[in-house]
Amino acid sequence: MPKEKDISIIYGRHPVVDALRSGTPIEKVMLQQGIRGEMEKELRHLCRDENVLLQVVPKERLNKIVRGNHQGVIALQALIRYYRLEDVLPGIYERSETPLIVLLDGVTDVRNFGAIARTAEAAGAQALVIPQKNSAQINAEAMKTSAGALAAIPVCRESSLIAAIEYLQLSGIKVLASDLAASKPLYALDLRQPVAFILGAEGEGISPAVARAADDQFIIPQKGTTDSFNVSVAAGMMLYEAMRQRREE
Amino acid sequence: MPKEKDISIIYGRHPVVDALRSGTPIEKVMLQQGIRGEMEKELRHLCRDENVLLQVVPKERLNKIVRGNHQGVIALQALIRYYRLEDVLPGIYERSETPLIVLLDGVTDVRNFGAIARTAEAAGAQALVIPQKNSAQINAEAMKTSAGALAAIPVCRESSLIAAIEYLQLSGIKVLASDLAASKPLYALDLRQPVAFILGAEGEGISPAVARAADDQFIIPQKGTTDSFNVSVAAGMMLYEAMRQRREE
Repeated sequence: MPKEKDISIIYGRHPVVDALRSGTPIEKVMLQQGIRGEMEKELRHLCRDENVLLQVVPKERLNKIVRGNHQGVIALQALIRYYRLEDVLPGIYERSETPLIVLLDGVTDVRNFGAIARTAEAAGAQALVIPQKNSAQINAEAMKTSAGALAAIPVCRESSLIAAIEYLQLSGIKVLASDLAASKPLYALDLRQPVAFILGAEGEGISPAVARAADDQFIIPQKGTTDSFNVSVAAGMMLYEAMRQRREE
Repeated sequence: MPKEKDISIIYGRHPVVDALRSGTPIEKVMLQQGIRGEMEKELRHLCRDENVLLQVVPKERLNKIVRGNHQGVIALQALIRYYRLEDVLPGIYERSETPLIVLLDGVTDVRNFGAIARTAEAAGAQALVIPQKNSAQINAEAMKTSAGALAAIPVCRESSLIAAIEYLQLSGIKVLASDLAASKPLYALDLRQPVAFILGAEGEGISPAVARAADDQFIIPQKGTTDSFNVSVAAGMMLYEAMRQRREE
């Protein structure tokens, strides 16, 4: 559930269509159940083009968010501009940088999300990739935890993480997934080549289908008895290892 | 300010003295201003012996915490047992382990504190060292963030961090401080020898006197524009580097 207090709301058919058309950053569009016709078709079309999640919800849900006449459609404005991988990746190669990308699979905790963004930006990663669904709300708390990084590192929102992984692989990027059952330690990976790390949710880890799409699995070695490292700390270790290996550059 | 809701409170002269004598873990003792005599002397003595902070406070402060007759003295029970370095260090050498210690200088954020404890335990550090004053309250939130680690790794509470550093150095441990102005990168340190890392507060960093007491300074390299790494992420990178260097053991 979004915390609507953090978010500006656009409502009414024309204002929402205009916002989508003008490229205003939109977190998601909520459309009232049962609405059909030209307006619905246009919204579906625009949301697909703009890579915005379109959620069909009961009228009561919309009534809770907006007291005015919402005409069956509400858009939640985003705090950041979202990118797509295909907009970001060519620029990385053009700048002669070695890609270092972070994919988040189901990281829904806003503080962990913000902390990972902060570390990724500071470590020189060029993009974060998140799925349209099942990701942390980028709200004021996430922005604050990121210490400004969420305004500096492109966040690519993809409708399918699997498709995003395939796109990265076709672009020459090795996709690496941390896995507590893997035997290869983090420091045995070659991180001087273009790489993307997949990070999973606290507790659940990376979803099986996403893990299978990766090129290689690795483990962060550990000695103590605590379950495992926090996901933002694990991200820090991976990105540090990449910086360490790339230090000659 | 402690969050008293998380903490059991012991009040009255005999109950507090009995708790201190029996070794009950105590966060701190609060004594009413103006109280003198045998009881005050005994409390001062016991607090010094048990390494517990004795705080002199106005009567009104005590009245806010306890509605009953506190007789001018309140003890806040601790959620963990505190150790002293001299209790913990010999055991590390006896187990033929190479000391890996984490000192926290002014880390007052409970979540950062809990996260550092979790990482330290998982990375095989044998102790956390905190000062009596200016450290995070070890409350329910710190315990939770530590994912159980605060019950597994000894927390040494020292009245002086400088004295603790000197004791570590006399015990053959190199004390290393991260410093954004240092030129030596983390990976250039020799971490196969016995080492202790000092971590400073978010923003302020390590206090100058504590930094001067260290044997060496280092920097975690960084590439992006974000201010610096979060302290718990930085701790993760340091401890990871130590695990990495010690992997042949």
